[in-house]
Amino acid sequence: MVLNREVLKSKVSSSVESVYREYVKVLAELVRIPTVSAWGGDGIKEGCEVVNSLLKERGWATTTVSGGGFPVVIAELGSGSKTVMFYNHYDVQPPDPLDEWVSNPFSLAEKEGLLFGRGVADNKGNIAARMAAAEVIQPYLDDLDLKLKFVIEGEEEVGSPTLSNVVDGYRDLLRAEAGFWETGYVGRDDVLSISLGFKGMLYVEVVIKGPNRDVHSGNAPLIPNPAWRIAKLLTTLKDEVGNVKVPGFYDDVDGEFLKNAEELLKGLDPEELNALKEELGIKEFVGGVEGLEAYRKLLLTPSLNVSGLYAGYTGKGSKTIVPSKAGVKIDIRPIPGQDPQKILNVFKEYLKSQGFADAEVFVESMYRSGYTNPKEVIVKASVKAAEEAYGKPPKVMPISAGSGPMYLFTHVLKIPMTGAGVGYYGSRVHAPNENIRVKDFIRGVKHVALTLIEYSSMRESSV
Amino acid sequence: MVLNREVLKSKVSSSVESVYREYVKVLAELVRIPTVSAWGGDGIKEGCEVVNSLLKERGWATTTVSGGGFPVVIAELGSGSKTVMFYNHYDVQPPDPLDEWVSNPFSLAEKEGLLFGRGVADNKGNIAARMAAAEVIQPYLDDLDLKLKFVIEGEEEVGSPTLSNVVDGYRDLLRAEAGFWETGYVGRDDVLSISLGFKGMLYVEVVIKGPNRDVHSGNAPLIPNPAWRIAKLLTTLKDEVGNVKVPGFYDDVDGEFLKNAEELLKGLDPEELNALKEELGIKEFVGGVEGLEAYRKLLLTPSLNVSGLYAGYTGKGSKTIVPSKAGVKIDIRPIPGQDPQKILNVFKEYLKSQGFADAEVFVESMYRSGYTNPKEVIVKASVKAAEEAYGKPPKVMPISAGSGPMYLFTHVLKIPMTGAGVGYYGSRVHAPNENIRVKDFIRGVKHVALTLIEYSSMRESSV
Repeated sequence: MVLNREVLKSKVSSSVESVYREYVKVLAELVRIPTVSAWGGDGIKEGCEVVNSLLKERGWATTTVSGGGFPVVIAELGSGSKTVMFYNHYDVQPPDPLDEWVSNPFSLAEKEGLLFGRGVADNKGNIAARMAAAEVIQPYLDDLDLKLKFVIEGEEEVGSPTLSNVVDGYRDLLRAEAGFWETGYVGRDDVLSISLGFKGMLYVEVVIKGPNRDVHSGNAPLIPNPAWRIAKLLTTLKDEVGNVKVPGFYDDVDGEFLKNAEELLKGLDPEELNALKEELGIKEFVGGVEGLEAYRKLLLTPSLNVSGLYAGYTGKGSKTIVPSKAGVKIDIRPIPGQDPQKILNVFKEYLKSQGFADAEVFVESMYRSGYTNPKEVIVKASVKAAEEAYGKPPKVMPISAGSGPMYLFTHVLKIPMTGAGVGYYGSRVHAPNENIRVKDFIRGVKHVALTLIEYSSMRESSV
Repeated sequence: MVLNREVLKSKVSSSVESVYREYVKVLAELVRIPTVSAWGGDGIKEGCEVVNSLLKERGWATTTVSGGGFPVVIAELGSGSKTVMFYNHYDVQPPDPLDEWVSNPFSLAEKEGLLFGRGVADNKGNIAARMAAAEVIQPYLDDLDLKLKFVIEGEEEVGSPTLSNVVDGYRDLLRAEAGFWETGYVGRDDVLSISLGFKGMLYVEVVIKGPNRDVHSGNAPLIPNPAWRIAKLLTTLKDEVGNVKVPGFYDDVDGEFLKNAEELLKGLDPEELNALKEELGIKEFVGGVEGLEAYRKLLLTPSLNVSGLYAGYTGKGSKTIVPSKAGVKIDIRPIPGQDPQKILNVFKEYLKSQGFADAEVFVESMYRSGYTNPKEVIVKASVKAAEEAYGKPPKVMPISAGSGPMYLFTHVLKIPMTGAGVGYYGSRVHAPNENIRVKDFIRGVKHVALTLIEYSSMRESSV
């Protein structure tokens, strides 16, 4: 049968309108479970089971695998010759600070067109939206010659520490021709943002020891205090304008990525980043960068940030001690081409060269940066579908400022990935009162379904 | 009646042996209450009430006054013409880190001759010991022409912020001819250490602000992170050998104090401080100082220490944010002659001059350093009594490395103060597993009782 794509697209769009309410209920079922990976335990276990049965009930063939950590749900629907994968995660960030939530973070609350709850944007809303898209597209999967595949992990919010084991151990199960990354969001200009890459991650905790126990600070004139040294250590890491001084830190960036990225940056409004200043109450960006230069700094350079710093007593009021240790939590985000292991090595070497051979470096998580070439069919398909679902061409970002284990898919499994998602600029991802708009949920479902149709069509015509 | 002092001393000593167990129970009652002044609340309230009733039950006339903060218990026993005061505090340091305690910090635990619990050395053990000494001396108070007076405050561990109000408001109630300061301890050589002075305190928290909320650290390349600036700020405060670079920081030291102090330092074993290195597992003292030079550094110079340092996420595992603020808790200890307000001013000026005009400086506590002349009768009496109670002449220190609001007593109320106490070198004051030795508790009680007898005798003979 030769499908009339235009008729199909219109049919599918109207189906979305009639099924989305069911998938708001599915979202509610997902939000209800506290799948906080930082906590582990029953929440993760139940979350995995519920995802599994929600998919099974809808005709997906599911299996659960593990790389030694929390389980990964893999599910397939349809039997076409081309497989499109949805990468998602059922885990969420911790909900605290709890007292800033206006509703229970683990109970979906709908209010004036908004849906509140931990994970609605990151990333349970996208699981529900993709299940909805699958339902409306299911009758046509054979005609489109597509198979759909969910890969839903449970450790994304803690750095996907065992996902590489799953990728190594289940290559066949993870085969696909193209995929959707977990997220995407709508900006203030009501334009969908599609990110084609994610930075990597090298999260380390650097610890300097002092006396073998906290000691009364009357002794401070004699006892070396590790707080002074951790402060000194930090000042050796960056120059006055915020550039990292570790030799080799900026090396090995993928030239093809940079070339494509520069091209995509031209499409961005250089003034847009300024909204961030006002929103966060800051006078100027690090190093005084502006416009396109600020985009380059944000997206096309690896970053090194202090997420946490501690020594001694940090509670209310006063305590007088020479602390026994001082530490700093540093998140480094490599960009495409960079090897976090190599960065770790030069980082450690640099600390030694600066007189901090005694600093202990503990690695919390480490993975590379991945990206998709904007010329890939799945990207083109999702761009075209976005024009239809949102009424405007999307903003295609070469890479996100954030991190994600995309490399395992784009570079290890060689699956080009596009972005799509139901969040918006006000989603407060990782923060209290995480929320999405119902209208974005609907548009997000349509966008996924339409992308699948466009992808099938473009693949056929490119053959 | 003419007392036979030698008979009396022997009687008193043997009474101590029969009553001390009761006062270990009193100590247990005191330790049970979490009188953490940094927390405030019910612990402080209950602590004050229990101290009050323990004294009342033993015949003390008690009253409670306040300078606007936590209450001060003042109690009197006897009606002699010369009043000897015990300055103490019922509050304690926070017990954390809790997981390093081998027993509940708020439950007295006895094990192999040691008594464990928060405050046993600093300073509840001394309250109990002095109550015990008062019980054995009480029958002879009239003959000794002595009145005893307790002044027990509840804010010592947070810098006695309102004690000066009490001193201003209740001069008559606080009258005394001589006094015992709160502490004293026995060294490795089994010699009691009597400190005749205490450094002052200027405890400040310096805060630097960043974005108006914690923000996803993907934005780190653009958003100024206050952790870098607090680190930079710290590195401007001291030079390579640990000297404070703030102009004026070392000015205005009392010349008479220094002269007496140098004299007393001659009596100290210059090697003794080295034990501290081994105990704390450090290779060398700050700036490589040794011997007498180390004593000078420890005792005769004002200090500046980092007691706490914080920014962002300091919990387990990882969280990726640019923190909205970074802060440092700094304790400065002025020595006699120095005005902490003046030091605060030059400190703030210096921060401005170094580019930290935006750093906010919050004062947690501020008081001057006080000391007693070693020629005072109460000092001589306590030295003689120590020879009897400990079998060896005590070590008289010109000043402690620690701080205390002694200035209000020695310089405002003009009460010469000697030191005495039940701690020892291994007491782990302010740290987990704070403990005293039962034998030091017994000797400490004797020392106080014998000092009172010697003091009465020396006063009479000096008239």
